[in-house]
Amino acid sequence: MAENQSLDLLVQALRRLPGVGVKSAQRMAFHLLQHDRPGALQLAKALQLATEQVQHCVLCHTFTEHDICTTCSDARRDRSQLCVVENPADQAAMERTGAYKGLYFVLMGKLSPLDDVGPHDIGLQKLFDRIRAPAQGADDAVPEVKEVILATNFTAEGETTAHVIAQALKGSGVQVTRLARGVPVGSELEYVDLGTIAHALVDRR
Amino acid sequence: MAENQSLDLLVQALRRLPGVGVKSAQRMAFHLLQHDRPGALQLAKALQLATEQVQHCVLCHTFTEHDICTTCSDARRDRSQLCVVENPADQAAMERTGAYKGLYFVLMGKLSPLDDVGPHDIGLQKLFDRIRAPAQGADDAVPEVKEVILATNFTAEGETTAHVIAQALKGSGVQVTRLARGVPVGSELEYVDLGTIAHALVDRR
Repeated sequence: MAENQSLDLLVQALRRLPGVGVKSAQRMAFHLLQHDRPGALQLAKALQLATEQVQHCVLCHTFTEHDICTTCSDARRDRSQLCVVENPADQAAMERTGAYKGLYFVLMGKLSPLDDVGPHDIGLQKLFDRIRAPAQGADDAVPEVKEVILATNFTAEGETTAHVIAQALKGSGVQVTRLARGVPVGSELEYVDLGTIAHALVDRR
Repeated sequence: MAENQSLDLLVQALRRLPGVGVKSAQRMAFHLLQHDRPGALQLAKALQLATEQVQHCVLCHTFTEHDICTTCSDARRDRSQLCVVENPADQAAMERTGAYKGLYFVLMGKLSPLDDVGPHDIGLQKLFDRIRAPAQGADDAVPEVKEVILATNFTAEGETTAHVIAQALKGSGVQVTRLARGVPVGSELEYVDLGTIAHALVDRR
């Protein structure tokens, strides 16, 4: 319908959101225009503000409104440990445990040959530069990072990403570790998949 | 995280979309900021444009950018028939059949006591005024609309809405009809629910 051009444009724009098809986009557009026009304007403003303000931390690559994010600029954190995660949500999950006091590097993606995502797309070079960067005021030959903890997801893509990073760091003098695989806390063996039990058996301590 | 205020605001604004929870809103925000900033700005503009431009047709109440929508101002349509539907998507479904040449009234909702939606919320008075409106240039006592076709959905709320409208129009001299219930085209009786078969039997012709 040519007469409703602005409505059609809104439906088209909503379809660019991940997981939103034609029907969902129409339902969203109708809902906003019929019941929540203030919400529509609020969303418009939030989108504009976020695209203007949100950038990547120069050290860990996560989203931030400053050059360096608050985690990276926190002097109380252990600067010798660098935990590599896929995205800010994974970083937030690690933070919620309260068990980690080091720094992060957020890949903002994972290697996924099927989706045509290669090392350049997730900025692996930036990670390697970060790992080799010397401590402030220290001898150029001594990098600040002593241990890289690979905390990519335990999916095919996450494992591949971890493997590629581990291979690239071989012989660099940096210790590379991976999150332990094993039986989740609170689960019964009967319901845990065989691969997980096998890994838990091999990695027993 | 106070440092990412604009990101938090974006996630909050996205949660106002129907069917979008915290996790979906975060995924949408990350996707837009990481992979599709032009899409974010396009959506912001489309939201602003639509809230400015889209209004309700004074005759049929559907979304339009003009005072009267193209359907209502189409001189080739039968002005004696008025089809009552719940929303513009239902109207579009009726139009796609190509079997209806009359006009519409779009309720933009349905009676739903459980959700606190009453006759005033879906503008039933506007519908009754529309039905009683005289034809242009005609005697004031003769309304233009001769038949009201109730095409609300065959759900509990849709049936209630149709029933309330039919009751209100009793004795008004306007013929009130309802879309036929029956077996869907292309379906096998074995897989059709009993209520539908019973209705198809009663309404057999």
